[in-house]
Amino acid sequence: MTKAKNGKKRDKNPVKQKTTPLRDLLRIPGGEPVDLTSHKTDATPGGPKDKAAGVLATARMGERLADLQERLYAASTAGDRRRVLLVLQGMDTSGKGGTVKHVIGQFNPSGCRIKAFKAPTPEELSHPFLWRITQALPVPGEIGIFDRSQYEDVLIARVRELVPPSDLGRRYGRINQFEQSLADDGVTVIKCFLHISYEQQRRRLLERVDNPDKHWKFNPGDIEERALWPAYQEAYEIALERCSTEHAPWFLVPADRKWYRNWAISKLLLEHLSALDPEYPKADFDVAAAREQLMRDAP
Amino acid sequence: MTKAKNGKKRDKNPVKQKTTPLRDLLRIPGGEPVDLTSHKTDATPGGPKDKAAGVLATARMGERLADLQERLYAASTAGDRRRVLLVLQGMDTSGKGGTVKHVIGQFNPSGCRIKAFKAPTPEELSHPFLWRITQALPVPGEIGIFDRSQYEDVLIARVRELVPPSDLGRRYGRINQFEQSLADDGVTVIKCFLHISYEQQRRRLLERVDNPDKHWKFNPGDIEERALWPAYQEAYEIALERCSTEHAPWFLVPADRKWYRNWAISKLLLEHLSALDPEYPKADFDVAAAREQLMRDAP
Repeated sequence: MTKAKNGKKRDKNPVKQKTTPLRDLLRIPGGEPVDLTSHKTDATPGGPKDKAAGVLATARMGERLADLQERLYAASTAGDRRRVLLVLQGMDTSGKGGTVKHVIGQFNPSGCRIKAFKAPTPEELSHPFLWRITQALPVPGEIGIFDRSQYEDVLIARVRELVPPSDLGRRYGRINQFEQSLADDGVTVIKCFLHISYEQQRRRLLERVDNPDKHWKFNPGDIEERALWPAYQEAYEIALERCSTEHAPWFLVPADRKWYRNWAISKLLLEHLSALDPEYPKADFDVAAAREQLMRDAP
Repeated sequence: MTKAKNGKKRDKNPVKQKTTPLRDLLRIPGGEPVDLTSHKTDATPGGPKDKAAGVLATARMGERLADLQERLYAASTAGDRRRVLLVLQGMDTSGKGGTVKHVIGQFNPSGCRIKAFKAPTPEELSHPFLWRITQALPVPGEIGIFDRSQYEDVLIARVRELVPPSDLGRRYGRINQFEQSLADDGVTVIKCFLHISYEQQRRRLLERVDNPDKHWKFNPGDIEERALWPAYQEAYEIALERCSTEHAPWFLVPADRKWYRNWAISKLLLEHLSALDPEYPKADFDVAAAREQLMRDAP
């Protein structure tokens, strides 16, 4: 800060003003009741001023994200066990698939492990509910992405009453223990709830119905699920309240605006990867000797 | 064609002149002896005139590739079993990883199934050599990418004499049968041999040795492998001769120039995907009814 002539303090470089990290803005405290209706779905907390600025800012993060990903991967080759797991949850059309395409598409695909969870198979159902989740976890150096996740087992399972209430009740604790074990093993868990409005879902479903190239994305069952909107919102509120923990917090991402959603999730990944600050490992070989050998060898 | 005033035939739009497809230019005929020394590693057959034009042309293919990928995936939701398998082989530093990053990075990552094959694990070794390959195959609608593949079992296995000669000899036939079965099941197999020179490998290994941020990519074992260059080239010649078939041809991609490599593999994918011409499936639901229901529903 410097003193301007009129005596008021002025920031030399306003761009560098310390802003609240997005992770703090979007984080659900946990342990407190959540009222989703109090969170606007078309809000843009901490975000760029409009779509054009948002798209540009997201594209600009791409290179840094890819660089941090490469460092994370490189570090794993020297024994660093750290990795990232991005969990995407939200109602149909909330943009889970779009996030994978636009946000994860910025990374080197060889370091990403993406899993879209569908209705459980008979084999998956024959195991505890976390079994299929553990099969899909990222290994050290990777960025794992779950399009739906263990939370389906307290969302659709709750709304559709797929399990007895006592089993359901235990699942929140199981999930917290499971995520604690991931954190203990070096997994940075980033859980994003993509929050859209009932009206926004209507618009997006209509887009699919009105565009023949999008018919394959539409399922009449989506309308049945939509009829259960209030029950799903309540199930999300409970999951966000009970499972937003210190080691694996939930972030509420307003997702009516796709550009904001892409920006926010890119930014959350950037903040978490920057905090990990992975480093290229030091050489474990004799650099000079290798160089000399390479200079003189012949087939 | 229109007649010009001087009576000569003139193409109205010279850009649309029919050019030889790249797949025909780069294809190894198969069944004939292959001499790799007769293929220049810094050639750019069929390619743009220089690096700037090549980078631009590759970027311009990105959108079409992503569109075709989406159609392929969409078609699979209606029962179309077709999928693509890109097999990348080549000496160390030939650019297999770079291809995944720059070419496959143009696709939606959720539709890509990428597998980098390393030295076989004890479990993998306890099975027939194609076992681990079958575990990593793409499912309908996907684009599979193998960074190394079943061919390691006739390359390093031959050079390092990891199996008896009779077993090795049988493997070429096994691979051809296996790839035939893939083709029969709707897999378009695109096998690319990334052809670099001994000198180019030296330069790229030196880059890794000279740049601390790339030390993690370097392994002194790479120099040992390099000492076996002639044996590897011979092993590739035999594999290309015996396993370039009608249903799963080999393409020889000169790879000293990274921009050409990226352009050529993008182009090969584009030609094959265009030939598949996947279509968005027709609606299997009552569009008007769905629309009406969506217009009037309320939570």
